Amino acid sequence: MTDPTRKFDDDFWQDFSDLLALRRDVRHFTDEAVEPNLIKTCLKLANLSPSVGLSQPWRFIELADKTRRAAIISSFEKCNADALASYDGDDKINYAKLKLEGLHQAPVHLAVFADITTKKGKNLGRMTMPEMTAYSVVTAVYSFWLAARARGLGVGWVSILDPKKVSTACDTPRDWQFIAYLCIGWPKQQSLTPELETLKWETRDDLSKFYQKL
Amino acid sequence: MTDPTRKFDDDFWQDFSDLLALRRDVRHFTDEAVEPNLIKTCLKLANLSPSVGLSQPWRFIELADKTRRAAIISSFEKCNADALASYDGDDKINYAKLKLEGLHQAPVHLAVFADITTKKGKNLGRMTMPEMTAYSVVTAVYSFWLAARARGLGVGWVSILDPKKVSTACDTPRDWQFIAYLCIGWPKQQSLTPELETLKWETRDDLSKFYQKL
Repeated sequence: MTDPTRKFDDDFWQDFSDLLALRRDVRHFTDEAVEPNLIKTCLKLANLSPSVGLSQPWRFIELADKTRRAAIISSFEKCNADALASYDGDDKINYAKLKLEGLHQAPVHLAVFADITTKKGKNLGRMTMPEMTAYSVVTAVYSFWLAARARGLGVGWVSILDPKKVSTACDTPRDWQFIAYLCIGWPKQQSLTPELETLKWETRDDLSKFYQKL
Repeated sequence: MTDPTRKFDDDFWQDFSDLLALRRDVRHFTDEAVEPNLIKTCLKLANLSPSVGLSQPWRFIELADKTRRAAIISSFEKCNADALASYDGDDKINYAKLKLEGLHQAPVHLAVFADITTKKGKNLGRMTMPEMTAYSVVTAVYSFWLAARARGLGVGWVSILDPKKVSTACDTPRDWQFIAYLCIGWPKQQSLTPELETLKWETRDDLSKFYQKL
């Protein structure tokens, strides 16, 4: 049982900073399988995430079925081709070089949804900001991602998808809103640098740009 | 410089699990001031959060001005009264007992926005899911929350607000979408149990309810 008054020391702070810095979007996976219990352990931590009105609206679906996965890959291919077509010049050349997902290699696929009509929480905190339900699920996705990284797993979040196609592939109820599609496996390499930075698509900005005091 | 191949051991896993379990939504703060540098240190970690296309769309505004804070408090009071009016019977009695924010006591207030028209990231990953911009900001809010908790600070996320009123109080550009209002300070107490659970509004469910394999 955790002591609620426990403190976190400077060593933990350093480790936690490293975890955030080393949490990358992974698109290159080895062939090695992932123990199902490891996924469940990470999901258990995700279940501790904050949720509006304690509604816990996250719904995790693991896609093991090949036909379902093929539908996801097909949606990605269509959406990615559309995205490529929208760029011109150097951007088009650079976009074509990017590897934006590990759908074929990742041994574990998770689709994550928000049950936006859940009665749990009795709508507390959602009346003026109904988007809080989706935001709660995003925190669960991020908790899972960090937990997976702490165990050495790599996670890639794929958003170049048609949400309707994902919902169809997963046979979800009409009221579940698609939030995230995660590719999970053992990463081929670990890096401090985001892939989009190494591929000269984009670089990170300093915090001072994003913060002001009024 | 962090070693990108470093591992995280079982002790870290235990500490990280504790951090997630002890990250509460805090609504009771002491009078003690918070060092500005401590907020900046936590924001620096938040700046490592994942963002779609490396767009880093998060914009943090610290509200120190009393008039601006008063506008936020006024919006909360209106929205909370409307919420109370929407409940009946026991729910109404229980809702009236809840303390859902620490707006008057918290020494630090942060409003967090998403710059949904940022050109950074060149729209990568946002074409079929434009909501990814807001989701990226949610991960930054959550990183900040966890970092603050690791330093002993308490954070409360207030969503019982009219987003338009918050944007007006913060004088933000039209294209900034309001995501979160955070009350930050030293917590009066630390707890493993969410306040909504102790106040019999809601209890947490087991993970198995939220996970299935197809």
